[in-house]
Amino acid sequence: MALAKLVEYAEAGPEVRAVFDDIMATRKVDWINNIWKALAVHPPTLARVWSQVKEVMGPGGRLDPLTKELIYLAVSMTNNCEYCIHSHTAAARKKGMDDEILGELIGVVALANQTNRLAIGYQIDVDPQFKGPQ
Amino acid sequence: MALAKLVEYAEAGPEVRAVFDDIMATRKVDWINNIWKALAVHPPTLARVWSQVKEVMGPGGRLDPLTKELIYLAVSMTNNCEYCIHSHTAAARKKGMDDEILGELIGVVALANQTNRLAIGYQIDVDPQFKGPQ
Amino acid sequence: MALAKLVEYAEAGPEVRAVFDDIMATRKVDWINNIWKALAVHPPTLARVWSQVKEVMGPGGRLDPLTKELIYLAVSMTNNCEYCIHSHTAAARKKGMDDEILGELIGVVALANQTNRLAIGYQIDVDPQFKGPQ
Amino acid sequence: MALAKLVEYAEAGPEVRAVFDDIMATRKVDWINNIWKALAVHPPTLARVWSQVKEVMGPGGRLDPLTKELIYLAVSMTNNCEYCIHSHTAAARKKGMDDEILGELIGVVALANQTNRLAIGYQIDVDPQFKGPQ
Amino acid sequence: MALAKLVEYAEAGPEVRAVFDDIMATRKVDWINNIWKALAVHPPTLARVWSQVKEVMGPGGRLDPLTKELIYLAVSMTNNCEYCIHSHTAAARKKGMDDEILGELIGVVALANQTNRLAIGYQIDVDPQFKGPQ
Amino acid sequence: MALAKLVEYAEAGPEVRAVFDDIMATRKVDWINNIWKALAVHPPTLARVWSQVKEVMGPGGRLDPLTKELIYLAVSMTNNCEYCIHSHTAAARKKGMDDEILGELIGVVALANQTNRLAIGYQIDVDPQFKGPQ
Repeated sequence: MALAKLVEYAEAGPEVRAVFDDIMATRKVDWINNIWKALAVHPPTLARVWSQVKEVMGPGGRLDPLTKELIYLAVSMTNNCEYCIHSHTAAARKKGMDDEILGELIGVVALANQTNRLAIGYQIDVDPQFKGPQ
Repeated sequence: MALAKLVEYAEAGPEVRAVFDDIMATRKVDWINNIWKALAVHPPTLARVWSQVKEVMGPGGRLDPLTKELIYLAVSMTNNCEYCIHSHTAAARKKGMDDEILGELIGVVALANQTNRLAIGYQIDVDPQFKGPQ
Repeated sequence: MALAKLVEYAEAGPEVRAVFDDIMATRKVDWINNIWKALAVHPPTLARVWSQVKEVMGPGGRLDPLTKELIYLAVSMTNNCEYCIHSHTAAARKKGMDDEILGELIGVVALANQTNRLAIGYQIDVDPQFKGPQ
Repeated sequence: MALAKLVEYAEAGPEVRAVFDDIMATRKVDWINNIWKALAVHPPTLARVWSQVKEVMGPGGRLDPLTKELIYLAVSMTNNCEYCIHSHTAAARKKGMDDEILGELIGVVALANQTNRLAIGYQIDVDPQFKGPQ
Repeated sequence: MALAKLVEYAEAGPEVRAVFDDIMATRKVDWINNIWKALAVHPPTLARVWSQVKEVMGPGGRLDPLTKELIYLAVSMTNNCEYCIHSHTAAARKKGMDDEILGELIGVVALANQTNRLAIGYQIDVDPQFKGPQ
Repeated sequence: MALAKLVEYAEAGPEVRAVFDDIMATRKVDWINNIWKALAVHPPTLARVWSQVKEVMGPGGRLDPLTKELIYLAVSMTNNCEYCIHSHTAAARKKGMDDEILGELIGVVALANQTNRLAIGYQIDVDPQFKGPQ
């Protein structure tokens, strides 16, 4: 039950429609998923967030698109974001993730969450060998 | 300042030494980093955690070792684990991560943390198109 | 599906009824929302939590009631508390929040969640200029 | 480096001193630890928080004092609160925790953090058998 | 709505069935709850996680089984894991937790979450008296 | 100890200098704080993050600048971001926050963190009266 009424394409103003059109063209889909309809309640946020997603998750750069989706999913699982887990699982499957890769991903996410708390729980000091450049 | 006195190799019993030896052999290093010395305070935990790390992060499987390290780092950054961020940055650099990949990784982690809160903040319902198999 | 049976006014003892009455009088409403019915399972917790909410969120002090609700909402969104997001959105709307303010609030919350992870991800040292008084 | 100047006993007003005196009398110690000196910057918060800690963590009730400290520590480790981990480890040691119990505690905390993300990662539905009373 | 199709006993291979059988025998129940059916999608993860849960949460050690469940619940509540809260509440009730103990547990969890943010919010330095052994 | 070498103005390329110049002009300061020097390791991230911060935290809109800073601080305290807590406390003090407002802010943040866990801990259903527009 969203906090604000979702904005459908038919009722959107030109500023919102331009973003919706770009989302559909970029992703080669013919529908808009709910998060963009919610962000459209506040058009500057819609434009700002979409431009970021397009830049960060798009092609180019050193990390391939599937790896980026897996990293995104790992964060979303750690943050317990139901919407994001479902939407980025769908996106990752389109880019090649299958059940076995999903199983390995969740295995790493779960292990990291465990060892994070071991290191925090014991308040372990960083070894000098691991220190960065400054 | 760790909560318990770290266990050094010289003072460790045979159960702990066996794990320390396996860590050094598996990783081809000649020293033990602090988290293992802390876990050695409770030997069953040391053995259990190491066997998992060896299985989950080791070779084999569909995800390559660098990708696993990047996922691990993404979780550790989201959980704010200083020790883990430093130790796994070092591990990822050994497996090929450079400043540019690190920059892209942090970009995805930061974006996901932002959009996670947008989806949660608006309490957006999952689109039926994203629903899983059951 | 709550973990314990909610306590309704009709079945409550005098200790719980006194708190319920004070909640309704303070808020000028004629019903009790679910969190208080759940806390009533353990009456000392009900009384302790209500007295805090009344003191912290009530009038007086330097922050106005709407600002306090927005801060409350920002925390609840960051913590992913579905119940709290819905109940405090309702409270904030009663105090003047509309969709535009909600959009700006979520924009700040999402940005902060992003930059928090940038600062944590890079493990950035605090500039001496930002250090506090001690 | 605290955000505000800590309030020392010698410079405190009577409202703050009364709380400081009660903390020392209740805990049978002759010094005040930093969190109370920081909360004293805002005396109503000092009084409110201390009264809660005294009520929740004090004797009486069904959970014994050591169990309460272990639960407190488990939350503090999960939330990565350095101050709280150190202060409640000290408190738990005074109530009987030794390195072995600490090791078991951290083992459970770490396991729970792992399985929490497995359940969240796969978005597993709650079995009907586990549903509560309402 | 789980991300992957749950594996039922009837369709499971021998590796998965062996774990399912051990879960039912260890717990003296005749059914398998959903988390194990989901982990069975990736059999090595199923075996690894079950062996840990069996070792960490089983009898033996210094902490009694109910205390371990309460610690587990405290972490799950802090992490907002709906599945885990329900499944471990059921487990804790089988080991003796009633509504009053649950109320005290939630009281400690909530207090710790509050004071954690007070200490973090003010960025309070750890008192030298609380420092650990190294 | 940052993960990458901070980029100083003197060694920065024109793309980075342009952002640094805009930060100093916008904020009317003559120095660059560490987070921007770290983001400059990956210039597209520096430009993207700064443009967002400038848009979201700048003047205009319905929320005044101090309120935005308080919301930002509330999130940073909940996420335990040491760098962000210090930098945004400094920013908020420049915009009028004093110790008393800080005390009230932390009081609300701590209360919300407590009640969030009460609602999550008991798994309380949202009252129909609080449901949003869709």
